[in-house]
Amino acid sequence: MSDRYIDFANSSIGQRLVGALGLPSPVRLERWQAGRLRPVEGPLLIGGGELAGQVNHFASKLTDAVFSYGSGSFNATSWIPGQGPKLKAVVFDASALLHIYQLKQLREFFQPLLRSLERSAHLVVLGRPPETLSEPFAASAQRALEGFSRSLAKELRNGSTLQLLYVGEGAEDQLEGALRFFLSPKSAYVSGQVLRLNACASQVQDWTRPLAGRKALVTGAARGIGASIAETLVRDGADVILLDVPAAKNDLEALAARLDGRFITLDICAENAPEQLIEQLPDGLDILVHNAGITRDKTLANMTPEFWDAVLAVNLNAPQVLTKDLLDSGTLRDDARVILLASISGIAGNRGQTNYAASKAGLIGLAQAWAPLLGERGISINAVAPGFIETQMTAHIPFALREAGRRMSSLGQGGLPQDVAEAVAWLVQPGSGAISGQALRVCGQSILGA
Amino acid sequence: MSDRYIDFANSSIGQRLVGALGLPSPVRLERWQAGRLRPVEGPLLIGGGELAGQVNHFASKLTDAVFSYGSGSFNATSWIPGQGPKLKAVVFDASALLHIYQLKQLREFFQPLLRSLERSAHLVVLGRPPETLSEPFAASAQRALEGFSRSLAKELRNGSTLQLLYVGEGAEDQLEGALRFFLSPKSAYVSGQVLRLNACASQVQDWTRPLAGRKALVTGAARGIGASIAETLVRDGADVILLDVPAAKNDLEALAARLDGRFITLDICAENAPEQLIEQLPDGLDILVHNAGITRDKTLANMTPEFWDAVLAVNLNAPQVLTKDLLDSGTLRDDARVILLASISGIAGNRGQTNYAASKAGLIGLAQAWAPLLGERGISINAVAPGFIETQMTAHIPFALREAGRRMSSLGQGGLPQDVAEAVAWLVQPGSGAISGQALRVCGQSILGA
Repeated sequence: MSDRYIDFANSSIGQRLVGALGLPSPVRLERWQAGRLRPVEGPLLIGGGELAGQVNHFASKLTDAVFSYGSGSFNATSWIPGQGPKLKAVVFDASALLHIYQLKQLREFFQPLLRSLERSAHLVVLGRPPETLSEPFAASAQRALEGFSRSLAKELRNGSTLQLLYVGEGAEDQLEGALRFFLSPKSAYVSGQVLRLNACASQVQDWTRPLAGRKALVTGAARGIGASIAETLVRDGADVILLDVPAAKNDLEALAARLDGRFITLDICAENAPEQLIEQLPDGLDILVHNAGITRDKTLANMTPEFWDAVLAVNLNAPQVLTKDLLDSGTLRDDARVILLASISGIAGNRGQTNYAASKAGLIGLAQAWAPLLGERGISINAVAPGFIETQMTAHIPFALREAGRRMSSLGQGGLPQDVAEAVAWLVQPGSGAISGQALRVCGQSILGA
Repeated sequence: MSDRYIDFANSSIGQRLVGALGLPSPVRLERWQAGRLRPVEGPLLIGGGELAGQVNHFASKLTDAVFSYGSGSFNATSWIPGQGPKLKAVVFDASALLHIYQLKQLREFFQPLLRSLERSAHLVVLGRPPETLSEPFAASAQRALEGFSRSLAKELRNGSTLQLLYVGEGAEDQLEGALRFFLSPKSAYVSGQVLRLNACASQVQDWTRPLAGRKALVTGAARGIGASIAETLVRDGADVILLDVPAAKNDLEALAARLDGRFITLDICAENAPEQLIEQLPDGLDILVHNAGITRDKTLANMTPEFWDAVLAVNLNAPQVLTKDLLDSGTLRDDARVILLASISGIAGNRGQTNYAASKAGLIGLAQAWAPLLGERGISINAVAPGFIETQMTAHIPFALREAGRRMSSLGQGGLPQDVAEAVAWLVQPGSGAISGQALRVCGQSILGA
């Protein structure tokens, strides 16, 4: 469960050795601590087009040090390269760059500040969704932001991250929620990602408890990522019900006691699982997190029917059936948030995981296909795709593969269950209905892709 | 330009050493030789749903040995596991698998034949585009094919490949063209890809010269990938005009003489480039291949304005401006085919290539955004994204990076310019209007992704 290399690389002798030998030197990522108030603890720099002005409106709620750089016409202290303070967070609005020659503003804005970033700084580029632009050249310029952003994310060092957010028309009022995630340590292990924000009627009322009053169910909650998700939803104010198989009852009971929550033991693949669940949720549900999942790895040449069936049943069929029945029974309320735990294997495929990757790709497809229909009731559905996360599951991977999995990402290390949990906790907020039908990778910008 | 490791690994002593040391053992890929007639030289196995019957209609034109396996109701010799011949090509129609429990047919079909594949066998899975299915669970099942296919492609050995083709309604009559590419050595270095076929009115008349009568322009044609594209288009019957910068005139002239074609020296970034080009193309154009491109690599911290501007001007602006002016002047005719040479850097991003990746992502976005508009005139536009290709450009990459680039793919080696050229030659066929707005990777299923 622990990454000893990262301990070594950050020790005083380790630092010297790592440098001398040219070994990877991952830094210890800064993470969100319970009780913290401000998303950004340090200077936030804003620049670029008119969305920068909108960000500036709420920027003082994120940090007490807001700076502007470049052409911004809003009211903030100017940051001067080489003289201004080191930066903890940066937002650049590139949505007005609709011609190729305007793209040079990306270089002009970012170059001077790259040597002034604090450790674990968080950068965000804003754009307009290319598919919403009618002019092909404008769409091309906005799509170019993706190549730029993914490349720059790979160049950042010291635990810094960068994302690209495409902000749709009418979605501007959801920027605060997105930036509270992407500019804070809550997104410590998310980098190089591209996400679309759409208009959403709901809003978070209280940023210290964004999930207050929301009822949540988390499957596979007894340990690992599921337990961390439950814990994080409770921290954010949700009333959480933990679900896991009967065999995990002891762990589940202990966690429920600690979180002051309820628990349900249930085999989600049992034929009467939906009925049983509906019966035990008389007060309805606002948040449904399908985290339960299994692996039964074999190359297809050696895959047994049992291995195939078990993985598809638990990982893909159960989420489909349960969600549908909870919807049809009215248990899952309007404005609900549904999260499907996928995997980068479901995106890139993986040797020995034809069954697992099929199930996880199926979940991503489920979110895409179902989102427009569920959207009519204000319900969002998204996939969260973890990369290499340090859990009991990955602790059993052979050493060399485990090391490769950890280092083959821009952040040069595995993530923690908390990193996945923070992404889920953000996506289930009321305002996060702005995101639906999408897959968010929590992978440290793993190089593995499709 | 040559991969000495692959020579070594395939030598008699090398084979033993590679096996004993657990080193990668890439095989020499089979490639298309001029004069060859049949796409498949060996047994072709067909199975699955009703598209399998449609493939069977033209299968005897692809090979002289057609077999069926599984539930197919069409007329072909049954293949029996353990007894049937080794297979050179396989097509499985999975388009009827609309429920999770039907997905097990993938395992049932493929498992028995995985030990009966010849070297450099080519496999294709057929499905229906998930986004065209109104039922979310059906869409999810069809989307699951992607995780399965990408995983199985990673499990194949000995130079074998696998793709997933989503066949839209009305696109069935374009399957022959697609399978002539994906089941033959023309797609030697393409694996793990997902492509959509849509309805298209045009058809190839003569499969031995599919581009007969078509006028083509290839930019950056003096050497490397561009020269190979020109050569391949000529092989397929096109009338090719070679374009490159004035400094490349000698190479260009020699190639033009060899191919019996015309050449034009022109700086495509010159302000009057479109006019000059239009003037020199009085007979119009059916095929436009934007291959010219440059790299000026630096991390963004060290990127000069000149490096940024040059890459964006050549790689992205010139293709936009030239294509638009050739369209507006009527030079680019109805039913034309436009190809933009992108890169996997444009998909995944790359350290030191913010400028290059932006330009290549911009091309992918250009194809996506422009395809619906150009489609009204029967014109298709697609991006081809090469991975690690053995050229003079990659020969200058430092050894360790070059080795990593070569081995970090399912096929364990770099591709050849011919591999990119074959993909282009297929996409510019009359029937390939079935594909538009898409990006086809030619990367040996490189693990690099977004």
